[in-house]
Amino acid sequence: MGRKQYLLLVIFSLLCGIAFADWNILNLNWKTGLDITLKNYCESWRMNVELHNIRDFDVVPGECVDYIGKYMTSTQFKVDSQRALEECSLYLSNLQLTGDGKDAWVFDIDDTLLSTTPYYKKHHFGGEMLNRTSLEGWMQKRKAPALEHTLNLYNEIKGRGVRIFLISSRGEHLRDATIDNLISAGYHGWTGLILRNLDGGEMGVQKYKTEQRKLLIEGGYRIWGIVGDQWSSLLGFPNGRRTFKLPNSLYYVA
Amino acid sequence: MGRKQYLLLVIFSLLCGIAFADWNILNLNWKTGLDITLKNYCESWRMNVELHNIRDFDVVPGECVDYIGKYMTSTQFKVDSQRALEECSLYLSNLQLTGDGKDAWVFDIDDTLLSTTPYYKKHHFGGEMLNRTSLEGWMQKRKAPALEHTLNLYNEIKGRGVRIFLISSRGEHLRDATIDNLISAGYHGWTGLILRNLDGGEMGVQKYKTEQRKLLIEGGYRIWGIVGDQWSSLLGFPNGRRTFKLPNSLYYVA
Repeated sequence: MGRKQYLLLVIFSLLCGIAFADWNILNLNWKTGLDITLKNYCESWRMNVELHNIRDFDVVPGECVDYIGKYMTSTQFKVDSQRALEECSLYLSNLQLTGDGKDAWVFDIDDTLLSTTPYYKKHHFGGEMLNRTSLEGWMQKRKAPALEHTLNLYNEIKGRGVRIFLISSRGEHLRDATIDNLISAGYHGWTGLILRNLDGGEMGVQKYKTEQRKLLIEGGYRIWGIVGDQWSSLLGFPNGRRTFKLPNSLYYVA
Repeated sequence: MGRKQYLLLVIFSLLCGIAFADWNILNLNWKTGLDITLKNYCESWRMNVELHNIRDFDVVPGECVDYIGKYMTSTQFKVDSQRALEECSLYLSNLQLTGDGKDAWVFDIDDTLLSTTPYYKKHHFGGEMLNRTSLEGWMQKRKAPALEHTLNLYNEIKGRGVRIFLISSRGEHLRDATIDNLISAGYHGWTGLILRNLDGGEMGVQKYKTEQRKLLIEGGYRIWGIVGDQWSSLLGFPNGRRTFKLPNSLYYVA
């Protein structure tokens, strides 16, 4: 193929890409009778992910990658997360804790205590299929930064004498890397760090996390709250007396 | 009081109001180290209501009434709702229904089938305490408009032969008004319209709705889905195999 043909092909592909994004919007405008922009469309995608109406997506839709990338690195994202954690703090301040060592709180790790946004920033903000090997390679580097406002809440909960359990879908083979990363990001003093034994087969994350909470409750713990960025960390019985969902529209864990 | 003093008092009150809103934001800026605008603040309030992190609020915060009013009457609100219903439709199209007359779907009424936004528009968009007598007076007028995109979904579900149950926290004394309003808005052909018998005392709405679903399941129905605008319509066991939450930040029903 000559250089000219190649250039034409590139231009044609770009036009097709634009046309495809536009087609979705046009189709929606036609169906709804509304004057919808790409921003409206991508915002509604994000909102419906947070509402748990959109489930099981593999990638962020191509036409919304820019929008989601901007949101996930925006002041608004920080304010939204901060507000969720303030509600935890308010709830905590009204709790009558028993002080018998059985008051417990559960945190998810990725995108709850530690941010994976630096990884996704290099991988098209969720717009490409997850390569688990590549993500775990990044986790092994132990450089995930703390979500700063969660660190404040974490310390506040610990300061109230509540036992902290981290229930993560990271595998056991990442235990050393996870501990190092948590500590260098400022987290310490948890009571349990529960990682997945992946020999157990293909159990869904929600089921795995629910079973782990069941074990805690059988051990006499009262789970006052759970903080997570995925609905699969919060749903299922038994859960916490309150649950707090942090915003995250980069990926979906079932 | 003279006219001058009165004017001064009005100006002083206005300044206090502005100062109070500003104070919340300033305080937040100080605590978070972020450069937060009123828009960021109100958007995070709305997002955290939808995430079910903020619960049991009596009124929309005064400084966010304009923001919430704008959102609830915006194209974005329509696009967000429409997207939620499209996900229902997608889910429905993949269902293997049995056709034995026991496939069921549950809808909430207010702000799911019918919109109460015209009422709240006249009442400070949720910024004043609810006066139930006044709201019920408005309901008696039977003028609530259909949420148009829900009407399309409602007809689609009915067309698939699925039995439709409306479970509402409206009281039995509103039965005639509710039926008239639903029919004039285009809804008909439901299998059950379940309203509250308020003699039963002060049971919370979530508990009441859960009990009604339990009765349906005891009657042999399979609840394939629930659509509602409040988490209290969707949470609790038994619920539907899928639940769909429509956005609504005008009020909270526990």
